[in-house]
Amino acid sequence: MTEYVFEFIRQIRFVEIIEFIGTFAFAISGVRGAATKKCDWFGAFVLGFVTAVGGGTFRDLLLGMTPFWMLNSIYLWCTFFSLLFYIFLREHLNQLNSFFFWSDSIGLGLFVVVGAEKAMLLGYDTWVIVVMGTITAVFGGIIRDILLNKVPRIFKREIYASPCIVGGIFFVILQVFNFNLPFISAITIGIVVLLRFVAVRWDLQIPKLKSEKTL
Amino acid sequence: MTEYVFEFIRQIRFVEIIEFIGTFAFAISGVRGAATKKCDWFGAFVLGFVTAVGGGTFRDLLLGMTPFWMLNSIYLWCTFFSLLFYIFLREHLNQLNSFFFWSDSIGLGLFVVVGAEKAMLLGYDTWVIVVMGTITAVFGGIIRDILLNKVPRIFKREIYASPCIVGGIFFVILQVFNFNLPFISAITIGIVVLLRFVAVRWDLQIPKLKSEKTL
Amino acid sequence: MTEYVFEFIRQIRFVEIIEFIGTFAFAISGVRGAATKKCDWFGAFVLGFVTAVGGGTFRDLLLGMTPFWMLNSIYLWCTFFSLLFYIFLREHLNQLNSFFFWSDSIGLGLFVVVGAEKAMLLGYDTWVIVVMGTITAVFGGIIRDILLNKVPRIFKREIYASPCIVGGIFFVILQVFNFNLPFISAITIGIVVLLRFVAVRWDLQIPKLKSEKTL
Repeated sequence: MTEYVFEFIRQIRFVEIIEFIGTFAFAISGVRGAATKKCDWFGAFVLGFVTAVGGGTFRDLLLGMTPFWMLNSIYLWCTFFSLLFYIFLREHLNQLNSFFFWSDSIGLGLFVVVGAEKAMLLGYDTWVIVVMGTITAVFGGIIRDILLNKVPRIFKREIYASPCIVGGIFFVILQVFNFNLPFISAITIGIVVLLRFVAVRWDLQIPKLKSEKTL
Repeated sequence: MTEYVFEFIRQIRFVEIIEFIGTFAFAISGVRGAATKKCDWFGAFVLGFVTAVGGGTFRDLLLGMTPFWMLNSIYLWCTFFSLLFYIFLREHLNQLNSFFFWSDSIGLGLFVVVGAEKAMLLGYDTWVIVVMGTITAVFGGIIRDILLNKVPRIFKREIYASPCIVGGIFFVILQVFNFNLPFISAITIGIVVLLRFVAVRWDLQIPKLKSEKTL
Repeated sequence: MTEYVFEFIRQIRFVEIIEFIGTFAFAISGVRGAATKKCDWFGAFVLGFVTAVGGGTFRDLLLGMTPFWMLNSIYLWCTFFSLLFYIFLREHLNQLNSFFFWSDSIGLGLFVVVGAEKAMLLGYDTWVIVVMGTITAVFGGIIRDILLNKVPRIFKREIYASPCIVGGIFFVILQVFNFNLPFISAITIGIVVLLRFVAVRWDLQIPKLKSEKTL
């Protein structure tokens, strides 16, 4: 028995741990959003799940593939744990803000890599690869905000997508030099995390659109 | 001529009658929602149609199949009739609330069965079968609420998805005993309808999420 | 070098020019919407892009095909130009209202033709052809309004979808007479533009739905 568990743990790859943490952080952000609208546990679960897997699902539909979460129940469980976590540790969440910021950022970077890699393996153009990486990373949050009846925050305030786009571009450029995939992935994630940190730390903003006088 | 009509009627299976009634009830709920936002007839038609077929469409996209309503115009006609029904019998609708409650519940149960069966035939895991049944039943209402610019009601107030999930689980369990599909389907629908009735009758609620003090 | 450019220009077909203009007009309407909600440039770009390609993307997903914009970067560039155009020429946009009205209408007609043609080539039923033409033309605007957190305008006020539906029906009927496709397309676009002009000029409205007294 013990050796099976041991074997199981040994087979978990590093990237899966990152993915779990990233998914968890994304799901928590969905659950927190649900709490602001006084949703019940079911609504919170759906919102957490959609935030976590929405980007990858949309990517897979665009690429004509079976959505990744239908092939592995881990994402469902991860959302379930994040809901339990929220229900029982809600009071202490604010002390964990910095943990969630980093988890979310690393998840963001990893999602860019996963999305970009999938599009690359299917032979799409460079720009499609960048777009797919970005969609994987940010689309879940857009659906979360639609379900919460808000204009997606990412369109208005935060530098959130730009690090993904830049990360995706680096992912593509680094391919040219024939580095191996783990190295390229690590660099891409690093760039996304770094840019997001810089953007939040110095409160960088993309210029806002001015409206016409009369519409 | 008469014999053709007779033959046509003879070929309608019982499940198709249930499906028509369920689709009608779902479409009416979309049309009623459209009326609350002063939509025009076109908007009401789209909202009715989306409420009725939205769940199955999303399921089919996830499963990589052609959306079911593109293969049979009956769903379009059913929505059309529900719109006419609303326009002409609007004043009397409240007297029919109980009829619509039961139609909606039976439709809900049938949609769970249809969705779960499709996923099962494609060989998906148990939990995907339950999820697909639930998505088929509840996703149309979620899109309706998004289009009406509201947080989906199902996330906040009503016990609506839980009966579907429980029904889906029973659908899967009953497979193990090798009952035939019509029997399993009838039991599943019965469970969904019963649970929904119990939930509404005694006003059961899923616990709400409490928000953190500061977000 | 010059001859390559010349050759490139010579190969642009008339329909591509119309498509570019139509896409541009659709993207501008997304960017304008973004401006009303004080989105930043990234949000405006996404909204413009979604408005321009959303209808065709949904159509392609329903038809089980690769979304058209993933095969040609022109739509991304077109959205990019429309954003630049808005940022620099915002003040003068109102003088261009009539230009945008016509571009938008012609785009609407062309999108109906493109969507209807795709469904026809795949051998779908007549009514699916009409539905796909209409979805191609109007769905982008629906997503734009969802993202801007509004009930889709098309459900409430404007005669916008009806010309598309009528155009689609004509597209199907004209097939019966074995006219060639360019001719049928031109007629369809003409009908859509004409009906839209008539509807706006005389402020035609589809009847609104009345609400029940109590809901």
